[in-house]
Amino acid sequence: MKVTVSEARWLVENTMRACNHDAAESVAIADHLIDCELRGLSYGGLPRALSVFERTTKPSYGRKPISISHETPLSALVDGGNTIGYLVGLRAAEIAIEKASEHGMSVVGARDTWHTGMLSFYAEMAAKRDLVSMIASNASPNVAPHGGVEGRFGTNPVSFGFPSTGDPVIWDIGTSAIMHGEVLLAGRLGQELPDGMAYDPDGQPTRNPEQALKGAIAAWGGHRGSGLAIAVQLLGAMCAMPAMPKDMFGYGCLFVMMRPDLLMSMEDYKAEVAGYAEDIRSTRPIEGGPPVRMPFDRSAAERRRCLAEDAIEVPDLVHERLVEITADMGGGPS
Amino acid sequence: MKVTVSEARWLVENTMRACNHDAAESVAIADHLIDCELRGLSYGGLPRALSVFERTTKPSYGRKPISISHETPLSALVDGGNTIGYLVGLRAAEIAIEKASEHGMSVVGARDTWHTGMLSFYAEMAAKRDLVSMIASNASPNVAPHGGVEGRFGTNPVSFGFPSTGDPVIWDIGTSAIMHGEVLLAGRLGQELPDGMAYDPDGQPTRNPEQALKGAIAAWGGHRGSGLAIAVQLLGAMCAMPAMPKDMFGYGCLFVMMRPDLLMSMEDYKAEVAGYAEDIRSTRPIEGGPPVRMPFDRSAAERRRCLAEDAIEVPDLVHERLVEITADMGGGPS
Repeated sequence: MKVTVSEARWLVENTMRACNHDAAESVAIADHLIDCELRGLSYGGLPRALSVFERTTKPSYGRKPISISHETPLSALVDGGNTIGYLVGLRAAEIAIEKASEHGMSVVGARDTWHTGMLSFYAEMAAKRDLVSMIASNASPNVAPHGGVEGRFGTNPVSFGFPSTGDPVIWDIGTSAIMHGEVLLAGRLGQELPDGMAYDPDGQPTRNPEQALKGAIAAWGGHRGSGLAIAVQLLGAMCAMPAMPKDMFGYGCLFVMMRPDLLMSMEDYKAEVAGYAEDIRSTRPIEGGPPVRMPFDRSAAERRRCLAEDAIEVPDLVHERLVEITADMGGGPS
Repeated sequence: MKVTVSEARWLVENTMRACNHDAAESVAIADHLIDCELRGLSYGGLPRALSVFERTTKPSYGRKPISISHETPLSALVDGGNTIGYLVGLRAAEIAIEKASEHGMSVVGARDTWHTGMLSFYAEMAAKRDLVSMIASNASPNVAPHGGVEGRFGTNPVSFGFPSTGDPVIWDIGTSAIMHGEVLLAGRLGQELPDGMAYDPDGQPTRNPEQALKGAIAAWGGHRGSGLAIAVQLLGAMCAMPAMPKDMFGYGCLFVMMRPDLLMSMEDYKAEVAGYAEDIRSTRPIEGGPPVRMPFDRSAAERRRCLAEDAIEVPDLVHERLVEITADMGGGPS
C-alpha cells in the first residue's frame, strides 16, 4: 500500500519510541530509515524498523550510553555500547567531520554497534561540508568469500563521497551478491532468492531465504569483490572489535575524511568533480542501451520523485505490524 | 625463454639507463619491474621496460626533477614533472609513510606522472612500517563506464594494505575487465583478447587489441565496479590533475596512510589481521573446489617459487629487443 512521507515518518518514529529510544534518537533513526525509503531502498526502510523493534525488545538486548575513548586531534573511537548504528554512526560522522574540517583529515571508529545503515547517508553529510570521505563497515560473517561456502565477512558496505559544485558524487555499495536486508525481506514476504546468491548450511546453492540465513550469502564480484569485502572487514576491525563480530553484535564502522584543499584549491577540485560527473553521463551508451548514469543518480532521482509524489510504497504486512506496534501511541500520523 | 633473476634485473636496469635514468633511478625502477615478474604479473615486468624505453626516447618526451608543493605536517603534493610513476610513486609513498608514522595519518598526492606500477608494492612498504594504507591511481580514460562504450577512466588500480603479525594483508586490483598492460602485451604477441573485454572505436565489441586500444576497454564488475573506478578517478584528481588525464600523461596517484594505534593497540590489531587471514583460508571450499585464498597469497607464493627457482619466463620477442637495446652497455648480466 502507499502512505505519505509524514505517515511513514510517524510510524517509524513511534516504533522507535516503542523500543525505548528517546525523542531525539527516534527522529534521528527515522531520518535515516525514511531516506532509505525515499531512495527506493525499501529493505532498509520501514521493514528495518520492524527488525529493530524485534531485536531491541528482546530481554537479552541492553545498551549503554555512547561514549568516546582514545581521542586525538585527528581521531576518536566512539563506543556505541550496543546502541543501534544509525545513532552511533551519526555521532561518529559528526566527530569525523569536525576533526577533518579543523585539522585536514580524520579517522573515527564506531565500535560495538549494529545496523549502521546506508553509508551514503554519512558520505552526503561529509560532502556537504566539502570533505572527501571513505567509510567502511564490517558486520557478522554471513557472506562467504570467493570459492567458499561459509560466512567470513558481512554484507560490508563501503562508500566514497566527493564534494562538488553540483550534486556531490557518492558511491556506496555492499560487497555481497545480495544485501542481508533483502534476504530478510524475501523471507518475510515468502519469496525465493534469485539463483547464485546463497549457500545452505551444507554448502549447497539455495534459493530459500531461511536456508541462506542459516548458511551463507555469496560474495559479489568474484575474487576482486571478495577481496574488497576482506579489506572492509579489516578496516572495521580497526575499531577495536573482532574482525568477525558474532551474531549481529559488535560491528565496527570506520570513517576516514579529508579536505581536498590539503593538496589543491577546493574550488578547482569541486569544479573538476562536477565536470567529471557530466563527462560520465555524456558517455556514448551501448548500442540500444539507456544513458550512462553516475552512481547515486538513480537514488537522487528516486528521492526527488518520492518527495514530489509524497508517497512511499510499503508491503501491507509491514504496515499492519507497524500500526499494531504504535497503536498505543498518542496522536497518529499527521 | 627463461632467464635468471639477475639477468632479468641487468636487462631492466640497463634498458632504464639507456633511456636516461640515472643509476639509482634505474635500480629503483628495476626493483619494481622485477617484483612484477616474480609475482607472475609479467605484463608489468620486462615487457613494461620496453614500453618505458619506447616512450621516454621519443623526442616529445621531457621531464623535470621531482619536487614537492603544498606541504603540511599531514600532507604533501609531489610534482612528478612527467617522471615515470615508479619513481614518483616511491617518493610519495616514502613521504606518506614518514608523515603517518610521525603524526598518525597522512595524505600524499603524486601528480604529473604515469605508470605508477603495482600499488601493492607501496602497500607492502607501508604495512612493513605498521601502517594501514589506501592507494588509488587514476589514468588516461581508456576504460568505458558500465553501460557505455567510450573511455572515461583508466584501468585504475586501487589497493588497501594492512599490517599483521604474519604476512601483511594486501588487496590490489584494477577496475577494468582486463589490464591495459595485458592488452598491450596481447598486441605485441599477436594474440586476441577474451570475449567481452573491449569495444572498438565504433562502440562494437572487439577482441582485437589494436582496435581495443583505439576504442575502450570494458569496466569490471558491472555498475559496482564501474562506480569504484569513478571514485578512483576522483581520488586521483585530488592530486591537482584533470579528472581525465589525456593520452597517457598527467596521472594522479593518492596515498592515504594511518596508524591503527590511533584507535586501538597496535599489537592487538596486527594479531587480529593475522588471525582473520587464517579464518579466510580455513573457509570450507565450494564442493570439489580448491582451498580459499587470501588476496596476495598467489603473488606471495609465486614470488617465493620464482626466487627459489631463480627463473623468470620472458617472451622471446621481448628478450631479443631488451638485449638489442642494452647491447652497447658495458658488463652484461652477471
